[in-house]
Amino acid sequence: MDMPSPDAGALARRPALLAELAAVVARDALISDPVGLRAYECDALTAYACTPLAVVLPGSTGEVAAVLRICHAAGVPVVPRGAGTSLAGGALPTADCVVLGVARMTEVLEVDTADRLIRVQTGRTNLQVTAAVEEAGFFYAPDPSSQLACAIAGNIAMNSGGAHCLKYGVTANNLLGVTLVTMEGEVMEIGDGHLDAAGLDLLGLICGSEGQLGVVTEATLRILPQPEGARPVLMGFASAEAAGACVADIIRSGVLPVAIEFMDRPCIEACEAFSGAGYPDCEALLIVEVEGSEDEIAATLRRVLAVAAAHDPVATREAADADEAARIWLGRKSAFGAMGQLGDYICLDGTIPVSQLPLTLRRMSELAQARGLRVANVFHAGDGNMHPLILFDANTEGQLETAEALGADILRLCVEVGGCLTGEHGVGVEKRDLMTAQFSAGDLEMQMRVKDVFDPRWLLNPAKVFPLAASAARREAAA
Amino acid sequence: MDMPSPDAGALARRPALLAELAAVVARDALISDPVGLRAYECDALTAYACTPLAVVLPGSTGEVAAVLRICHAAGVPVVPRGAGTSLAGGALPTADCVVLGVARMTEVLEVDTADRLIRVQTGRTNLQVTAAVEEAGFFYAPDPSSQLACAIAGNIAMNSGGAHCLKYGVTANNLLGVTLVTMEGEVMEIGDGHLDAAGLDLLGLICGSEGQLGVVTEATLRILPQPEGARPVLMGFASAEAAGACVADIIRSGVLPVAIEFMDRPCIEACEAFSGAGYPDCEALLIVEVEGSEDEIAATLRRVLAVAAAHDPVATREAADADEAARIWLGRKSAFGAMGQLGDYICLDGTIPVSQLPLTLRRMSELAQARGLRVANVFHAGDGNMHPLILFDANTEGQLETAEALGADILRLCVEVGGCLTGEHGVGVEKRDLMTAQFSAGDLEMQMRVKDVFDPRWLLNPAKVFPLAASAARREAAA
Repeated sequence: MDMPSPDAGALARRPALLAELAAVVARDALISDPVGLRAYECDALTAYACTPLAVVLPGSTGEVAAVLRICHAAGVPVVPRGAGTSLAGGALPTADCVVLGVARMTEVLEVDTADRLIRVQTGRTNLQVTAAVEEAGFFYAPDPSSQLACAIAGNIAMNSGGAHCLKYGVTANNLLGVTLVTMEGEVMEIGDGHLDAAGLDLLGLICGSEGQLGVVTEATLRILPQPEGARPVLMGFASAEAAGACVADIIRSGVLPVAIEFMDRPCIEACEAFSGAGYPDCEALLIVEVEGSEDEIAATLRRVLAVAAAHDPVATREAADADEAARIWLGRKSAFGAMGQLGDYICLDGTIPVSQLPLTLRRMSELAQARGLRVANVFHAGDGNMHPLILFDANTEGQLETAEALGADILRLCVEVGGCLTGEHGVGVEKRDLMTAQFSAGDLEMQMRVKDVFDPRWLLNPAKVFPLAASAARREAAA
Repeated sequence: MDMPSPDAGALARRPALLAELAAVVARDALISDPVGLRAYECDALTAYACTPLAVVLPGSTGEVAAVLRICHAAGVPVVPRGAGTSLAGGALPTADCVVLGVARMTEVLEVDTADRLIRVQTGRTNLQVTAAVEEAGFFYAPDPSSQLACAIAGNIAMNSGGAHCLKYGVTANNLLGVTLVTMEGEVMEIGDGHLDAAGLDLLGLICGSEGQLGVVTEATLRILPQPEGARPVLMGFASAEAAGACVADIIRSGVLPVAIEFMDRPCIEACEAFSGAGYPDCEALLIVEVEGSEDEIAATLRRVLAVAAAHDPVATREAADADEAARIWLGRKSAFGAMGQLGDYICLDGTIPVSQLPLTLRRMSELAQARGLRVANVFHAGDGNMHPLILFDANTEGQLETAEALGADILRLCVEVGGCLTGEHGVGVEKRDLMTAQFSAGDLEMQMRVKDVFDPRWLLNPAKVFPLAASAARREAAA
């Protein structure tokens, strides 16, 4: 993985930089010793690691602005970091950068149930946002699998989704406003707590911008009333394609479950061994969750099962009570941990039209065979957001590279069938050079010109999102 | 209303421009005679009118690109136009411009129920989008009051909402991709039919950009399965504040109706006289619509009525059948027509936090009194999108100006209580000089720099959205 290295000058200027940073944050908020820095060398894409010049963990928007002003004046790149759960290397440091983490900024600033919103500092975890409003009968809808750990800052940077976004939309659909600090240290309030905004909608641009435009320190999020009830049904199928076809038919039938999750055999077996969820012995399973009153749940599940019948399910199980529902979800939510026990894997994140699920699953398995690797699948099927896990052995020479090549094959396939390089993990470093598979040179140039507006010197989250050669050229031209 | 005038040069070059335009569109698609141009002098903000140099009505994206290339080369400003229903002057011509209307581009390009999307040319009206999918059991959610007439192009330009956006979100929440033609005539595909996109999310930026960044010729829209059933309840109150407080309490209670509409006495009386909807004699009424199965509707309406009881409703009426439901909605949907019969009015469009409804209604009525005018209210209360109608007499010297001044007072009030200058009508010419009430100089500069990226010469939809002095300076600097 090519990343910019520090020049001799950057290292020489490091002591002065550290002194300046120390003056604007709390004593324990500046990390510069090698042991302390280790924890920030990588994010959840652990195949890559790089030690930054320093890490700062400011306690307020004002401190974030002060840190950015210092780095901007010194021409030092800044890598913003939430909880560091990025699977795409979105928070991977460069050797010449300062990592700016918002993990200590976890306050709830405002809860307003009449206006259906909560305002938080963005270091707060996703699940802790819901925790702050659940007693009042509300919840925050986007629910990435990492919701226990991941920070709202990262959710906004990557426009995260989750199992329930089939019904409730992704982060962009639930974000009402942000406080953004630009690389120059200017604090901007963007969005105003409403779904629309006057003037150009910079909020829509900020959401999903992967730390390229500024550091988001506070966010106003839409909260929703909790549904009366919810119940999952588990359905096993004789082939992955049958399960895929069933998903397309459910959506086509006009039923809108709150979630449709897909797992194939390798994943089912790993999850079963890990969590004992009681999953059936089959090639693929779907977890379909519906919401509403008891009657509505029963009626909707009847419709789902009627559609599924055409695909000859080998097993179906409705959750009889809350415990059983929890156990069905436990298996799914532990999937990534469970797969980790089987060995090394790369978790991909592509999106495809739901109608293309059966075709994509078949072609993916052919691509894997051609590279001599196995792929396990566990993903949000209802909205076509796939998470193929490529299994490999990091200790076998060349396997990581083969796995990466297969990952690129699969993501190109997603684009080919009418999909997108990323659903919710972002481009990060992982997919920067695949961007040309999705976007024309003109499209990318337009995106980079928008980046120019917010970060003219290209100091924010360097070497990510855009093809490396393109962003390096941009940074050099601006220097 | 100050708008740029054509210089002598522009008029001298007009014949050559017309010849060039005639060569790239159908014979009847270029309008240049004074009588034909009359129809395009204004949009639904009829207080202002201006004759453009010419109007072109291309039949395809390719023709739109050709027209834009010609205008760009000639340095002629272009005013994009959908159906011309803008209430904010979003499609008001300047004397030196070509109006580019997409009204003849009405095709359905693709319907895909498995992927829950429809792709249309943007001249298609909002209601005709739903018409194309309703037999399959789906609908397009955003439903502005003008949905019979308004084009998807304008919905995207203004990020339109509607009565049902309380539950389903505004256009931005239902837009999956667009074909955009830049002022230079370059065709870009933005968004890919999914809720997330790789790279910077230009789609979020395009939506609501009021024709400042390009001309949107095709759009991919999310469609939703039709609800099993829906039923409105009508509730009358002894004061506007009581009705406003009831709205805040409904939202706070965690019920999420699909729509909550508000009307005050002047509006109720006008609608009743116009449509005979059977509205009660009261100071304010709410129409609350809920969706779902019969049981769910009944249960939800019980909760709504229980909340409302605390505000002493003077009348409540549940729709007993579809006919009665239609009649309840008929009154609301005819509100703008009905008000027109009473005399001249300006329809405002501000958004406020729902919790501030009672306060805002009271202060608004004080502001109106101070200016000696009356205000009628009919609006989407559930999400705080207000549409105060300022009643005035255009034939009385100075009343238009007083009405405009009151409009500015009211919009400033919206911003003061934590809201926004516009909910769904956009800024247009109407609110361009109020933008400074909402945005700091730095915020506006950032928005204008983004405009620079897409339209460096500031030729697209001139003299709108940004304060006139600012946009004029920008255009001059680029010339």
